Amino acid sequence: MSLFRNFQSVKKTAFGRGSFNHLDEIIEPHCDKNAGFMVFVVDDVFKGHPLADRIPVKEGDVIEFINTWKEPTTDLIDDLRDRILSERGMPNGIIGIGGGGIMDIAKASSLMFTNEGSSVQYQGLNLIKKEGIWHCGVPTISGTGAEVSMTAVLTGPVKKLGLKCDWTVFDQIVMDPELTAGVPVDQWFYTGMDSYIHCVESITGTKNNTFSTVYAHKALDMCREVFLELDRDDPKSADLLMIASYMGGISLTYSEVGVCHALSYGLSKILEVRHGLANCMAFYHLEDVYGDYIHEFKTMIDKHGVSIPQGQSAGWSEETIDAMAEIAYNLPHMWDHAFGPDWEKVLDRDRIKEWYRRM
Amino acid sequence: MSLFRNFQSVKKTAFGRGSFNHLDEIIEPHCDKNAGFMVFVVDDVFKGHPLADRIPVKEGDVIEFINTWKEPTTDLIDDLRDRILSERGMPNGIIGIGGGGIMDIAKASSLMFTNEGSSVQYQGLNLIKKEGIWHCGVPTISGTGAEVSMTAVLTGPVKKLGLKCDWTVFDQIVMDPELTAGVPVDQWFYTGMDSYIHCVESITGTKNNTFSTVYAHKALDMCREVFLELDRDDPKSADLLMIASYMGGISLTYSEVGVCHALSYGLSKILEVRHGLANCMAFYHLEDVYGDYIHEFKTMIDKHGVSIPQGQSAGWSEETIDAMAEIAYNLPHMWDHAFGPDWEKVLDRDRIKEWYRRM
Repeated sequence: MSLFRNFQSVKKTAFGRGSFNHLDEIIEPHCDKNAGFMVFVVDDVFKGHPLADRIPVKEGDVIEFINTWKEPTTDLIDDLRDRILSERGMPNGIIGIGGGGIMDIAKASSLMFTNEGSSVQYQGLNLIKKEGIWHCGVPTISGTGAEVSMTAVLTGPVKKLGLKCDWTVFDQIVMDPELTAGVPVDQWFYTGMDSYIHCVESITGTKNNTFSTVYAHKALDMCREVFLELDRDDPKSADLLMIASYMGGISLTYSEVGVCHALSYGLSKILEVRHGLANCMAFYHLEDVYGDYIHEFKTMIDKHGVSIPQGQSAGWSEETIDAMAEIAYNLPHMWDHAFGPDWEKVLDRDRIKEWYRRM
Repeated sequence: MSLFRNFQSVKKTAFGRGSFNHLDEIIEPHCDKNAGFMVFVVDDVFKGHPLADRIPVKEGDVIEFINTWKEPTTDLIDDLRDRILSERGMPNGIIGIGGGGIMDIAKASSLMFTNEGSSVQYQGLNLIKKEGIWHCGVPTISGTGAEVSMTAVLTGPVKKLGLKCDWTVFDQIVMDPELTAGVPVDQWFYTGMDSYIHCVESITGTKNNTFSTVYAHKALDMCREVFLELDRDDPKSADLLMIASYMGGISLTYSEVGVCHALSYGLSKILEVRHGLANCMAFYHLEDVYGDYIHEFKTMIDKHGVSIPQGQSAGWSEETIDAMAEIAYNLPHMWDHAFGPDWEKVLDRDRIKEWYRRM
């Protein structure tokens, strides 16, 4: 229960309703480096939204509204970096305002501004050579844990895999639960469940320790309060879900994700299903692995009347299922966590395909 | 419930039984700076203890065994710094191995190696001018939260007050619950109660927010499991208490301590009562402030058969009580937290003295 783990934390953590109003003073100490400007990467749902007018953009700063319907790719990061470097030079820092995709874009870009070549070559653990520029995350939806995790997940030509190292972790995060008020119910649910699933996977595998387990249990308790007890309009609901996301992210940093995330990566890479929904589609059918947690998950679904697509596999070709299974199979760290070092004795591509066929 | 708060975290956090065996590899990346040596400050209870032989001291490193029966003073820090700088030059870093006192010595020394003059002039918030040297904390007793807090509490000629700034926070902590196995029962209890009291004070005051409250409730749950349910010999007990200490420390960073710590500071400054015991002596008589928490605390005392000294005030002169009340009264941030900005309407020196007379 107490495997040795040593990880980097987010350096500064702001929490509180209205924290976003302090973003200006948070950025200010970091404005005197490099070419003298900041980059804001913002989910394009906020284009024309009142939040956009509250972003403390100064003269010379760059603001990029980015569509995150598709998950961030290595191409997107490389292009953004190349364009800004050639047109404007090295930014002082980068601030991401949005969901998990935007968090990953901010984290990955921070590193790629200082590391040469394509982000494809850095997908993996500790491949980054140099510290990135100052980077700050402002989540506007709760659940992904991307605000606190040490990975920036990117979809590349071959792999969906993170740039993972100590320098990936944000220098600053700003957790303002007010920012999550406008999220549509389905997305609120799917993304919130990302945190629930992180915790279930963290607890049930072989790589956890007491530290990761304590965080996971607390985050699970908060998810239960949010999805089974409180009204979503209760401000406490948004407060707790934002902290559940954060604590779930810490838990998985000190542990690992498992079966659901492996299957989910296949769905996202091959069929471009968004991460939160892909998790829910997979988790729904994993009673043989996660038991009572699946019943609890279905109770939450019923309470909020959200729909998890069913019968999808009828429309998938064998090639599609093969391709997804191949992606999932090639995530040995997740299988090792879920089933232990002898995971190959209980898992093969056929078992993975059987899970996909349930969806 | 969601006041804006923005604080520095410990940069790297190791957790796990046997983590201490990794101290060498943890220190290694920080060995190539300054005059090329490390300083270890170690509680002198470990002199001749098997743990001392496991400390990865290299040729040229300095190891100082320090008696922490008295709480650390500004003189101790200044003398240690002056002696090492004049004899050996600037260390690469400093590693503290011990309880809250040793944590405070490591944190304060780290800052005083790079900031000129006496530590007395830096007692307070954000008075430090320069970042300190790399510093690492290895707690050997659980409860103080000093491993994670942003203050290094020192007793000076006038004040008991911390050097508090972003740079105070450890660059690295190593939480190895195995190290706490030999702590005598009384000390284990008094120090563990420091965490319990941090959480009670954090929750019940006016400066908390949802983030600090979530951490406090989780740490309280763990204290209950440790002090009301588990055997102390159960490894889970030591694991949980170490995390409770950590989470209680985070909670109070994002909130504040209250009445008990104010009274406790008076006891420590004037009568040199150690912090954990001083807290317990004060908390025992604070039912008018902390209600049912005091009942729960007394249940824990009964279960473990520890003694909290009673009838002490009969031996205190009026001058002693006046002096303690003066120390306590001059901690307005604690009173403001406990009773709100109009605290002077409900608190005067007489009320404080009345509390001391109960002890």
